[in-house]
Amino acid sequence: MDLIVVGTVALDDIRTPFGDEKNLPGGSATHFSIAASHLVQVGIVGVIGEDLPEAHLNLLSERNIDLAGIEKQQGKSFHWKGFYEYDMNSAHTLDTQLGVLATFDPKLPAAYRSVPYVFLANSDPDIQMRVLDQLDRPKFTFLDSMNFWISSKKGSLEKVIRRVNGVVFNEEEARQFCNTPNLITAGNRLLDLGPSFVIIKKGEHGSLLFSRDFSFAAVAYPTEKIIDPTGAGDSFAGGFMSYIARHDRLDEDVFREAVNFGSVMASFMVEDFSYRKLVSITTMDLLERYNRLYQYIHFEPLDAL
Amino acid sequence: MDLIVVGTVALDDIRTPFGDEKNLPGGSATHFSIAASHLVQVGIVGVIGEDLPEAHLNLLSERNIDLAGIEKQQGKSFHWKGFYEYDMNSAHTLDTQLGVLATFDPKLPAAYRSVPYVFLANSDPDIQMRVLDQLDRPKFTFLDSMNFWISSKKGSLEKVIRRVNGVVFNEEEARQFCNTPNLITAGNRLLDLGPSFVIIKKGEHGSLLFSRDFSFAAVAYPTEKIIDPTGAGDSFAGGFMSYIARHDRLDEDVFREAVNFGSVMASFMVEDFSYRKLVSITTMDLLERYNRLYQYIHFEPLDAL
Repeated sequence: MDLIVVGTVALDDIRTPFGDEKNLPGGSATHFSIAASHLVQVGIVGVIGEDLPEAHLNLLSERNIDLAGIEKQQGKSFHWKGFYEYDMNSAHTLDTQLGVLATFDPKLPAAYRSVPYVFLANSDPDIQMRVLDQLDRPKFTFLDSMNFWISSKKGSLEKVIRRVNGVVFNEEEARQFCNTPNLITAGNRLLDLGPSFVIIKKGEHGSLLFSRDFSFAAVAYPTEKIIDPTGAGDSFAGGFMSYIARHDRLDEDVFREAVNFGSVMASFMVEDFSYRKLVSITTMDLLERYNRLYQYIHFEPLDAL
Repeated sequence: MDLIVVGTVALDDIRTPFGDEKNLPGGSATHFSIAASHLVQVGIVGVIGEDLPEAHLNLLSERNIDLAGIEKQQGKSFHWKGFYEYDMNSAHTLDTQLGVLATFDPKLPAAYRSVPYVFLANSDPDIQMRVLDQLDRPKFTFLDSMNFWISSKKGSLEKVIRRVNGVVFNEEEARQFCNTPNLITAGNRLLDLGPSFVIIKKGEHGSLLFSRDFSFAAVAYPTEKIIDPTGAGDSFAGGFMSYIARHDRLDEDVFREAVNFGSVMASFMVEDFSYRKLVSITTMDLLERYNRLYQYIHFEPLDAL
């Protein structure tokens, strides 16, 4: 196994203009690993309570996802309740119950410590740091965070950003963390902290990849079907990291391809509640949409105007 | 002459975090024609008052822009005063004096009536319609508008959209006009009204081109230098239309290239107040940035994942 994710395995109650569903399989590690399972075996590090339906774990196992790093504790699983308005651009939280997540301190199974590719999903940056401490020379560590930690633990977050190889923010987070309205400036400032790669996600507007050697802009796959945007970012990260892990190269071409593959994954993710759409598609579906994305942005350089 | 613009020749007082300037050369036709003058000769249809400095017109003439369609009337020129906050994303209007524009009814010089490429910059859709009535079988008419006309004259605007070949909206206008948060849906609905091409501009996020045969997404050229965003949209349109007029073809490749050329033009436009940067660059500068845009988005299609 070459890829692990440290994140949440949760229950979601979600209302959108297209439905109202309770106790959905949710959490960053869930959506990341379902996405990644199209290309590689992935292991989850996380915590669940006694209330998580067995069926949720079974579906992960059926997709060859390794669950050795999931701790089961007395109490309730992390549970998020929220809704989206018609414009689907931002999630509105109704209730967050941390449950067993409140006291979770991830301990990596011995077999996970030498895994080369590691995704640290959004969580307390001090916990993310303790995960890094358990890793034995990973090839590529990739970190997500959110506005809550930028506001409440910026010092810790900066420390952990200095230690990872890559970081992903959405555009509001990047602007907030770097205190600039300009995303190009923000990307460059994040690079200055140490990571080799920075991704800024812009939802329907695609994403930007920054590195010291090159920059890359990806557009979002054009879709009119957005049923539930929950997990779009985690499925993007799952597509991105699994593509890199599968090719096991950290060169420019692979990074450009991985960003697009993440976009394609997210475009399927939002087409149904939870990961339902992702588990109904094949790698051929992903490949087809990837190549349509190429047609969508393609043009040739010019010798003259 | 193959291209004309019907729009404003104005004076602007503009404050941004980088300066505070008065009586700048402004107006949609001014910025459009300065941009277009890099590739083709362009004629302006517009109105000015007695207060417009001779130097503003001289600069247009020096760039081989035809001024036969500019009427000089008793009174004051259109004058806009506004400012931008630090984030530069939206203009805040302090004062708008229509002056001679209030009663302007464009009459095309005889030589302009058979021009093949026509840009109708933002104005009252009833006036835009009267311009269309004066044209003798143009090849490509392209229309801009704004939220004010969508709110106040939607019926007239819809009528004129049904008569042009192409329409350009920014993302807020497209969402408002089509009453949908989804830009892909908006683009398709605008096509349904009749135009062959629809462009939705997204500022720092690039633009989307819709047609019945293909779609195209362009990213914005990555820039950290944004001094004054006034006229970005008009310079985009000037780059776009001049590229099409110069190549005199309405095929897919030319449209993709023209959208990118418009993006490149706008990326220079915002680097200084008014059109100062645009008149300081060469076609080589434009070509170089065009090809850098290609590097910025380039990836190859895949045979397998």
